[in-house]
Amino acid sequence: MEQQIFDLLEQKNYVEIKRLLQDMKPQDIALLLEDLKDSQIPVVFRLLPKEIAADTFVEMSPDNQKLLINCFTDAELKAVLDDMFLDDTVDVIEEMPANVVKRILNQSDAQSRQWINEVLKYPKDSAGSLMTMEYVNLKKNWTVKQCFDRIRKTAVDKETIYTCYVTDGTRKLIGRVSLRTMMLNAYETVIEDIMETNVISVDTDADKEFVASQFSKYDLNAIPVVDKENRIVGIITVDDAMDVMEEEATEDISKMAAVTPSDTPYLDQSVWRIWLNRVPWLMLLMISATFTGLIINTYEATLSALSPLLFACIPMLMDTGGNAGSQASVTVIRGLALDEIEFKDLAKVLWKEIRVSVLLAIALAVVCFGKLLLIDNLIFGYDYTVTLSALVAVSLLITVVIAKIVGCLLPLIAKKIKLDPAVVASPFITTIVDALSLIIYCNISVALLS
Amino acid sequence: MEQQIFDLLEQKNYVEIKRLLQDMKPQDIALLLEDLKDSQIPVVFRLLPKEIAADTFVEMSPDNQKLLINCFTDAELKAVLDDMFLDDTVDVIEEMPANVVKRILNQSDAQSRQWINEVLKYPKDSAGSLMTMEYVNLKKNWTVKQCFDRIRKTAVDKETIYTCYVTDGTRKLIGRVSLRTMMLNAYETVIEDIMETNVISVDTDADKEFVASQFSKYDLNAIPVVDKENRIVGIITVDDAMDVMEEEATEDISKMAAVTPSDTPYLDQSVWRIWLNRVPWLMLLMISATFTGLIINTYEATLSALSPLLFACIPMLMDTGGNAGSQASVTVIRGLALDEIEFKDLAKVLWKEIRVSVLLAIALAVVCFGKLLLIDNLIFGYDYTVTLSALVAVSLLITVVIAKIVGCLLPLIAKKIKLDPAVVASPFITTIVDALSLIIYCNISVALLS
Repeated sequence: MEQQIFDLLEQKNYVEIKRLLQDMKPQDIALLLEDLKDSQIPVVFRLLPKEIAADTFVEMSPDNQKLLINCFTDAELKAVLDDMFLDDTVDVIEEMPANVVKRILNQSDAQSRQWINEVLKYPKDSAGSLMTMEYVNLKKNWTVKQCFDRIRKTAVDKETIYTCYVTDGTRKLIGRVSLRTMMLNAYETVIEDIMETNVISVDTDADKEFVASQFSKYDLNAIPVVDKENRIVGIITVDDAMDVMEEEATEDISKMAAVTPSDTPYLDQSVWRIWLNRVPWLMLLMISATFTGLIINTYEATLSALSPLLFACIPMLMDTGGNAGSQASVTVIRGLALDEIEFKDLAKVLWKEIRVSVLLAIALAVVCFGKLLLIDNLIFGYDYTVTLSALVAVSLLITVVIAKIVGCLLPLIAKKIKLDPAVVASPFITTIVDALSLIIYCNISVALLS
Repeated sequence: MEQQIFDLLEQKNYVEIKRLLQDMKPQDIALLLEDLKDSQIPVVFRLLPKEIAADTFVEMSPDNQKLLINCFTDAELKAVLDDMFLDDTVDVIEEMPANVVKRILNQSDAQSRQWINEVLKYPKDSAGSLMTMEYVNLKKNWTVKQCFDRIRKTAVDKETIYTCYVTDGTRKLIGRVSLRTMMLNAYETVIEDIMETNVISVDTDADKEFVASQFSKYDLNAIPVVDKENRIVGIITVDDAMDVMEEEATEDISKMAAVTPSDTPYLDQSVWRIWLNRVPWLMLLMISATFTGLIINTYEATLSALSPLLFACIPMLMDTGGNAGSQASVTVIRGLALDEIEFKDLAKVLWKEIRVSVLLAIALAVVCFGKLLLIDNLIFGYDYTVTLSALVAVSLLITVVIAKIVGCLLPLIAKKIKLDPAVVASPFITTIVDALSLIIYCNISVALLS
């Protein structure tokens, strides 16, 4: 398909391109535009049927959006803006330079301009910054018939019509009614009799992660955003909640890998931006490894005198400790993110991890003992005696148990003291576990061998 | 609220509990039931208003569901089953022992039984296993008025009425029309004139991860599942797609931390199950660390003779290499999962990582050089000479660049040869990078110091 359109562009066969575009989804057209030359993008965009032009614009990358806005006449810009929902317009505005923002605001009608400015006031990542004002507002004394008439008249400008909100004279949210419920009731039914009154809503300053969790917990299509006086100020729809869920998972994954999260897709990030997101963490972790270095330097002479083979086991001990710790920490971090684990479960989690870690540690220690005696000793000919192998195995055992305990406790404590559990994950735990396991190993070596 | 209900249960004040339950959401009631004694669960469940009993049942843990089914009379079981959607019934069945499944099927009507058996045939994690047959089916020559009548009559049994599907005489999917579009058109409009014909659908055997990605890409409320002849066999709704998205993110996070993923929440998993999900990976990684051990043993005597301080830098080198590698790999793995990166971007990714890694490596090497000379040498009094510090810094530089290259390439190659990119993540990359960085370090040491 894509190749076909490239060829048609070469041949300037715009009629055929127009025909092909008609059957494509806006999301796919936006992807296609990414692969065109800058000069071709406005040409193809102007061939789009009016109904899907705005939808396509919304799906495009900020760079292409900026390019198009700069090519648009005022009338073209106004046509696209009129067909866009408010939350999408705000998303576009947040990525544009000041002069483009000014043009967008100039081409919006007075009501939209007022709404946009209101949404822009809310902090990034808050419910207020995600919402749109384009919801269906009903009154409790209306009948289903009256509501249908109202919806049919205004649906085109509403982000969703499937969940409608009922407010009183002071815009206070008093109920929620789904189009499904209305469809299931007679036309003369009064809304008050069929609306739900215990409406799940979020405050304007609620965190977007919390907003998304409400969607997946209560299987919502939309959620109303209310102010301190419970007046409805907007709604957030499920498609935006899904985007937030994806972003939050990406953020947590980045943090676990010691990278500052970014909203921008990897391929669109500049080399400098990626460098900046990674360098502070690597630097911090490198410097914290100083402790391990100091510990080794302290024991170096002693260990050398006891057995030169002791050094060879340090990486295995440290890696296994690090891996065991991150297994526990990552499991707990994800559990916290999904609300499956809370701080009050600390004792339960700890007791579980202690049992798991003892079982794991025994299995690993036995295999490690056998491996040193059979493979390293017999096959490779290094002089791992029974005492030496046992001492490594015992150190491994203790390391794994400590690693699991540190790994499960740290994220829970972080959560309690309102730090982000994901940032304390594997790399930090590795540093702590490395230092502890080395001290244990060196001390056991001294105790057993000297 | 919860404490209040506990107290009322003690006082056997069921009237007041009933009143309180009326205002609660099914999801919150299910959470409340988790905290009750086994004997109290059926008591409270029987106080629920009929409209929310089935919804609450669906949200409960498998253990509590089993407990309730065993307490239910046949009539009670039938009442709950009649109010449940098919996909939820299948979810329950998948967690139940054979005798309970038999009871459930016996209490389902013939049509549901046939549908349930059909869904159970599809492999776990396929679109077929997620779908429900309860969708609205329209004909292309019907008017909006006729469709509304049809929807009003059947809505109660449909999982969603907001997206309806148009089929021909042979059940082939020929169009899709949203309730919104119908609301926006006159009652006499014929469906054929307003339906979308390029319908996004998935095959019965499509992977659930792909299904979820279609939802977030195209902002869908529901997606039709079709067979090889494009006949519609069911639909999947957005609430299920959100659950899949969460599960997939959890799975990827687990794999990156070298844990076999599990569908069961952490606190509900037995100690043995957790042990089993973790031990093979730890074992494998421990054994693969043998290589690092062998390398150190090979060079031990040489390094000792050159400078005993060389050992102390090994953990820092290996940790930094591991961290640098997982920064790259995790970023690429997430990009692959979100379809932001494909295999064809390999050259772009590699070039980006090379530039980023050189910049990172220079920054880290400079700081490392300074740290060894100023802190370890001057403050702690270890004899890190300029040559020694430079050799560590250069090794670090090379290690970071290699780690980034391995870290970005491995997930892309895994994807290409149809392995799961997430399982090759940090721990495996760490093992490879550890071995490479050690060899480089030892060789540079020998070259510079002897």
